[in-house]
Amino acid sequence: MVGNSLKIHDIVIGRLPIYLRALTFLSAEGQEITSSHELGQKLGISSAQIRKDLSHFGEFGKQGTGYNIEYLSQQLQRILQVDREWETALIGAGDLGRALAHYGGLRERGFRITAIFDNNPAKQGQKLGDCVVKDSARMAEVIKEYGYRVAIIAVPAAAAQQVADICVEAGVKAILNYAPITLSVPADVHVQYIDPVLHLQRMSYYL
Amino acid sequence: MVGNSLKIHDIVIGRLPIYLRALTFLSAEGQEITSSHELGQKLGISSAQIRKDLSHFGEFGKQGTGYNIEYLSQQLQRILQVDREWETALIGAGDLGRALAHYGGLRERGFRITAIFDNNPAKQGQKLGDCVVKDSARMAEVIKEYGYRVAIIAVPAAAAQQVADICVEAGVKAILNYAPITLSVPADVHVQYIDPVLHLQRMSYYL
Repeated sequence: MVGNSLKIHDIVIGRLPIYLRALTFLSAEGQEITSSHELGQKLGISSAQIRKDLSHFGEFGKQGTGYNIEYLSQQLQRILQVDREWETALIGAGDLGRALAHYGGLRERGFRITAIFDNNPAKQGQKLGDCVVKDSARMAEVIKEYGYRVAIIAVPAAAAQQVADICVEAGVKAILNYAPITLSVPADVHVQYIDPVLHLQRMSYYL
Repeated sequence: MVGNSLKIHDIVIGRLPIYLRALTFLSAEGQEITSSHELGQKLGISSAQIRKDLSHFGEFGKQGTGYNIEYLSQQLQRILQVDREWETALIGAGDLGRALAHYGGLRERGFRITAIFDNNPAKQGQKLGDCVVKDSARMAEVIKEYGYRVAIIAVPAAAAQQVADICVEAGVKAILNYAPITLSVPADVHVQYIDPVLHLQRMSYYL
């Protein structure tokens, strides 16, 4: 696994899921071969950048013949470690949690929500997707018992840091945080953020 | 408006909403003054970077006395053009659209969803947040008539490019796209993407 033994810039890693997504789309359209040029045009990334990014991980195509889509997809899945299914804990069963629980795209791409927690007794016991919503008080216990390493936080900002602390203490190493605050976590825990307003404000500057 | 007359790197612009969000939080906690050092610690960004980013837009604090939170917030809101309210069209009234329509954080931070469209007749006529869901067939007409420049796309991947084309043709200049595909739009249209799986896969690489 070259990809995990060399230190590769996180920005490169961040582009691999975008390549994988594009390949999955081409494959669904029945295409078998693609090129860095075609991918680049679809993604608005230069073909040289794509070739350079992929070259960190091996030789995936031959000059002039392009990439075999299925093979490259499998390799990217392996590199990103989504050739397996990550059991994922979801904290927060509000509107957003509900949308996430019902979103099939997570499971198709490596992440399956198999535990949902909410501190609202009215939500506990409800079925959302494949799960029955559990009391947040059981979060630490369940995360430890089943060894969850991935969690999605979809609670209000005021509760997010406390939820993150419990997750991290219980063994979670990757957090996708929807609450509009920057979380404080130990260095070995990965956090990614989704806040639609940050994206909107980034665009309104230009309007 | 220094910020709009000089060409400032988009990465800098992308950090301003993060600063604004942090300032809003500090303000809500009753704090009146902050420093680049404190902001940096909260955000995991170096204080030098913060000072440099802000220096593109003017002088917002004095050496040794820090930033007045309210003043800096107002200035950032002005620079990002969210000292006004952007009427925002939402396309897609599924689980995600529903969550967005109910999310108060949009309006508090400059974006108000005032039109929602869905092509499913069962959803049309339903009330979501402040809006009644309209037939997607009316999208172009309504966007043009009311001059929407900001749209959020929350439809399945297979429909997203077509929806984007209609929005752009009708005058939209900023699209927040939740569908898991890269959109093709003219150079003067801004697109930002939210795909939770890209974030999750970026982290699973490291697990």
